[in-house]
Amino acid sequence: MDIYLALVHHPVLNRQGDVVATAVTNLDIHDLARIARTYDCAAAFVVTPIHEQIELVRRIISHWNEGEGRTSNPDRHEAFTRVEVVASLDAVMASIAARHAGEKPEQVPLVIGTTARKESAMAGYGAIRERLLREAGPALILFGTGWGLAPDAMQRANVLLAPIEAAPARRGYNHLPVRAACAIILDRLLGDHPAMEPKRENP
Amino acid sequence: MDIYLALVHHPVLNRQGDVVATAVTNLDIHDLARIARTYDCAAAFVVTPIHEQIELVRRIISHWNEGEGRTSNPDRHEAFTRVEVVASLDAVMASIAARHAGEKPEQVPLVIGTTARKESAMAGYGAIRERLLREAGPALILFGTGWGLAPDAMQRANVLLAPIEAAPARRGYNHLPVRAACAIILDRLLGDHPAMEPKRENP
Repeated sequence: MDIYLALVHHPVLNRQGDVVATAVTNLDIHDLARIARTYDCAAAFVVTPIHEQIELVRRIISHWNEGEGRTSNPDRHEAFTRVEVVASLDAVMASIAARHAGEKPEQVPLVIGTTARKESAMAGYGAIRERLLREAGPALILFGTGWGLAPDAMQRANVLLAPIEAAPARRGYNHLPVRAACAIILDRLLGDHPAMEPKRENP
Repeated sequence: MDIYLALVHHPVLNRQGDVVATAVTNLDIHDLARIARTYDCAAAFVVTPIHEQIELVRRIISHWNEGEGRTSNPDRHEAFTRVEVVASLDAVMASIAARHAGEKPEQVPLVIGTTARKESAMAGYGAIRERLLREAGPALILFGTGWGLAPDAMQRANVLLAPIEAAPARRGYNHLPVRAACAIILDRLLGDHPAMEPKRENP
């Protein structure tokens, strides 16, 4: 299955709950690229409507895909070949549609929202993992920067993944970097850990 | 169980396989602090023998524990209360010994090495998870920056964790940032994902 990631800088919330556009962090893009490549995602989209930020991300991508980075660090280059910067979630959907144009049946991605807050009707990792590893159609996983995806972004999701939590005795802090959340969620959904699975913590 | 992390900047390897001391990255320390706190680790050690780097990390820790950061971002402060900078792995072991001084029986940590390379006699995540969640004594997980832990650091490990891999059909890239590897490994060992466990990929 073709799996796409989007690192969303707008629409997201700030600490006060306002809808804002956050600034792009260079290291987030590198980490997103490397994590996406590790789990063989088809593309990682950096979403920002801010013109200067789009230009900045284009320069970073170009450095690794066409510039010096291509030869100085081939592994990083390989990760960056799958990174694209776009202005909106509509543009993400359009890019995915274009990549699957002409395929029958028409490919509409399963959109998977992520959040650090508990909400009703959330999907477990097992169920989504099963779909991603077994089904054929594309999927798009949305990650919010700042204080998380704004309602307008959340509403695009067909399913909402449960928040990452530590084992029951170890809980109480809920402030992972989006880079870490992205790594953990990809590993839970697409990682190889059969040795972990025979035993259940909460049978 | 008290679980400790060490982000090792020396002795580690560079791209050519030489033993070097890498430079500390500010963001690595923030991510290490937040990931360690999420999974309720007792302490996260930043290991560097370079005097200027030790002073730099001390200033960062102090900013968040005693300076402006304490009130400007209480969540970050909470994560940083568990970060300590030390000059060597011997100092890590001494700090852990001091924290458990007087306990009977004497507490010697189980030292867990991590690597991106496959080696013989590696431990699966299930076995280590079982020990960490069930046993009483302390454990220390070593993460190497640069191109990974040098042999001198590896030799301290009582067990070596298998490398992180994607599900079988998705493999082929092995260059995760240490921040991402740390997040994934902590989640595999101490995360809550019972919904994932009933089904096995490779029964």
